[in-house]
Amino acid sequence: MRVLGVDPGLTRCGVGVVDGAPGRPLRMAGVGVVRTPAEAEIGQRLLLVEQGIEAWLDEHRPDLVAVERVFAQHNVRTVMGTAQASAVAMLCATRRGIPVTLHTPSEVKAAVTGSGRADKAQVTAMVQRLLRLDAPPKPADAADALALAICHIWRGGATNRLEAAVKAAAARTISPPRTISPPGSKGTLR
Amino acid sequence: MRVLGVDPGLTRCGVGVVDGAPGRPLRMAGVGVVRTPAEAEIGQRLLLVEQGIEAWLDEHRPDLVAVERVFAQHNVRTVMGTAQASAVAMLCATRRGIPVTLHTPSEVKAAVTGSGRADKAQVTAMVQRLLRLDAPPKPADAADALALAICHIWRGGATNRLEAAVKAAAARTISPPRTISPPGSKGTLR
Repeated sequence: MRVLGVDPGLTRCGVGVVDGAPGRPLRMAGVGVVRTPAEAEIGQRLLLVEQGIEAWLDEHRPDLVAVERVFAQHNVRTVMGTAQASAVAMLCATRRGIPVTLHTPSEVKAAVTGSGRADKAQVTAMVQRLLRLDAPPKPADAADALALAICHIWRGGATNRLEAAVKAAAARTISPPRTISPPGSKGTLR
Repeated sequence: MRVLGVDPGLTRCGVGVVDGAPGRPLRMAGVGVVRTPAEAEIGQRLLLVEQGIEAWLDEHRPDLVAVERVFAQHNVRTVMGTAQASAVAMLCATRRGIPVTLHTPSEVKAAVTGSGRADKAQVTAMVQRLLRLDAPPKPADAADALALAICHIWRGGATNRLEAAVKAAAARTISPPRTISPPGSKGTLR
């Protein structure tokens, strides 16, 4: 399975491609950053993000795109750009029929370091080790995109299936769902 | 000048097309809502917003797209979807080379009612009057999109040029700019 991880941002959008499967060695297929100039108009910046993501999809043909889930609580100044860049990434993938999954930063940290509160250096060190790289991945801020891809390969869509079940249950009734099937089962989802 | 106003949202994205020029009568060319199902996956919803906006651009060929500026402060639950839908609208326009401007809700209210704190009923009443409609625009929540288009026709890109100047000045120096040209002048912009 080949996963493109996207750490969304308008100024710097980290991208990393990892090949792997649960229980098998991982391999980095590519890493980089899509940049847009801060002084450009917002529409132009979104267009540059789109073109950058499209180029990565063209070159690496991932089976899945894993995008960092953006929360509104953090850093109000940058969160809108992050949300907008993530929308572009999800749109590009969906347009090609490539499934998209979202993972929270703490899920990603927990997946690669064992702790949801790991710091950036720890995440980078583990990404380097797991991908058996001679040096930390460059550019440095693309390590998170690789970590996202690794997180998805190991966790799979568990989070998303669970979320989909919760959402579907919430749509059916106003009261919270009493039981939710474990991520593996398919019985009550949808 | 023909303006497509977009009141962004993932569940309901209001769209309204207005023809006009400052000091001349306004004419409504179209109004509607692009809807996406709440239970669909986010990528799919963004794709539906894109297809909806593209259809409106195809049919009405606006000279400009005016999008409501989204703020992170309001309603944390829905703001991410709003930001993402607005990104798609801006992307669709920019891809076609159509200029995009952003207007805040209070700018829009002030433009059509004279007060930045006008309520929804007041905005709808003024939109109906200014466009000389026999009844309030339907669907009701598309009135804001028409108001956005009217706001742009009357205000022009003043807000954006001012913002661009501030942004450019901020990029040049860390200290805030001392003087900013009034919106009408072109001297120091860019």
